[in-house]
Amino acid sequence: MTRIVCQQLAPRIADLAANRALARTAIREAIDAGADVVVLPELVTSGYVFASREEAATVAIAPDDALLTEWAAEAARGDAIVVGGLCEQGADGNLYNSSAIVDPTGVRAVYRKLHLWDREKLVFTHGEQAPPVVETRVGRIATVVCYDLEFPELTRAVALAGAQLLAVPTNWPLGPRPAGERPPEAIVAMASARINRMAIACADRAGTERGVEWTSGTTIVDTDGWVQAESREPGAVTADVDLALALHKAHTDRADLFADRRPEHYGAVVAALGSTKP
Amino acid sequence: MTRIVCQQLAPRIADLAANRALARTAIREAIDAGADVVVLPELVTSGYVFASREEAATVAIAPDDALLTEWAAEAARGDAIVVGGLCEQGADGNLYNSSAIVDPTGVRAVYRKLHLWDREKLVFTHGEQAPPVVETRVGRIATVVCYDLEFPELTRAVALAGAQLLAVPTNWPLGPRPAGERPPEAIVAMASARINRMAIACADRAGTERGVEWTSGTTIVDTDGWVQAESREPGAVTADVDLALALHKAHTDRADLFADRRPEHYGAVVAALGSTKP
Repeated sequence: MTRIVCQQLAPRIADLAANRALARTAIREAIDAGADVVVLPELVTSGYVFASREEAATVAIAPDDALLTEWAAEAARGDAIVVGGLCEQGADGNLYNSSAIVDPTGVRAVYRKLHLWDREKLVFTHGEQAPPVVETRVGRIATVVCYDLEFPELTRAVALAGAQLLAVPTNWPLGPRPAGERPPEAIVAMASARINRMAIACADRAGTERGVEWTSGTTIVDTDGWVQAESREPGAVTADVDLALALHKAHTDRADLFADRRPEHYGAVVAALGSTKP
Repeated sequence: MTRIVCQQLAPRIADLAANRALARTAIREAIDAGADVVVLPELVTSGYVFASREEAATVAIAPDDALLTEWAAEAARGDAIVVGGLCEQGADGNLYNSSAIVDPTGVRAVYRKLHLWDREKLVFTHGEQAPPVVETRVGRIATVVCYDLEFPELTRAVALAGAQLLAVPTNWPLGPRPAGERPPEAIVAMASARINRMAIACADRAGTERGVEWTSGTTIVDTDGWVQAESREPGAVTADVDLALALHKAHTDRADLFADRRPEHYGAVVAALGSTKP
């Protein structure tokens, strides 16, 4: 079993030092609790509700920043993997809403969010690369960020590429939902996990920021699509998940959720590629 | 608003006459209750747990069978659309697990299940055509069957093709699930509805058949992915759903669930096409 700890945190907008300490403490506490994998929210290094691109630039960091070296050092205490969001300063001068996969050896991969949500488009540049799938001691881990999860083409892609765990740093803005229902994004995570037999760990943020209220919807879903842990409170959300189950896609001797795909008939999707782009 | 009535029925295995009467009565009752759209279970004309292909052939019907003409006549009483499953006798000699879309003018489309589940592969032949999307007086309706729903490529395809309502005749075999949770297939329907902004109506079957217990998981989901009606009991499940909402895919001025797709980066999916086929 792999112990996954998602830390539901409330970063401070544009306060790099405070957020650095917040994340470091959160990783340390998770490691002390036996975490094999720690997932932190989207943009945990910077906060989210920037007034402008210029403001975001003041707290953007490169992937070789000491801040991420610190994550690796904390990870090393438990031979763990840390996945968390950062406001990335690209060498090209652009800002990216990114997620880093870090282990005791350092930064293994940085993914730049492909699907920017709403006003993020005024601050960040879209990524241009598919999500990485990284071999780790607990299995293959991929990462996407928040709104990315709502594009089934992408979650299918990472599952077909062999991901056993999808780590999703997220900031879900609170919206209306019927009483008694989970956040809709958590329902999407459950369905995506089931149909791909891939565990999904969504680390949401807590608190409010410049008037934006967050869902605090942190949710860990197992490879059958069932919620193993969820919380609406700040702090650690922990589940032990068997990631080996993601290696076998058969339902029965005659049914297999990957082998039963009929890609030759999904031409309608391919034909529509780009047709609805603005 | 469009009134959708799913009829959760228990067909009798290999008893064409009994099932004909069952479906006719169910359509009539739904029309009397104001249905604009009536959805019936998978293989409602024939039952499901066939001992052999030969047994299924004894109750297979062609799309021009009087049985479907009868559905059209019942539909005409309420200017309604009926979608339901049939064991189809193909002109090519094959049997298909099909779904018919019928309106007062007759059979508008017959779809042959693309993704056959488990032992269905011993009885039926896979379809070879993408799901139809049919213009009706209440909007564009598409249909897929049961296990098809678990392939997000297909549900995305029908949404991109303009479907406002996806009607899903289904026979969900009962499996274990955590207490208090919906059937997993219903959760997949909720997520698929949300991410495509397309209503989804799943008509499941009731009862047991040759030792197989069914979920009785009939569920109607609106265009935001919320369950508007569900029942574990036999009979009608009714919801009034605004299908016009499916015509607009924008979340905000700067976010649109179709325009935000980045198909040029889903190459990993395309590259994997066929790679996991046996």
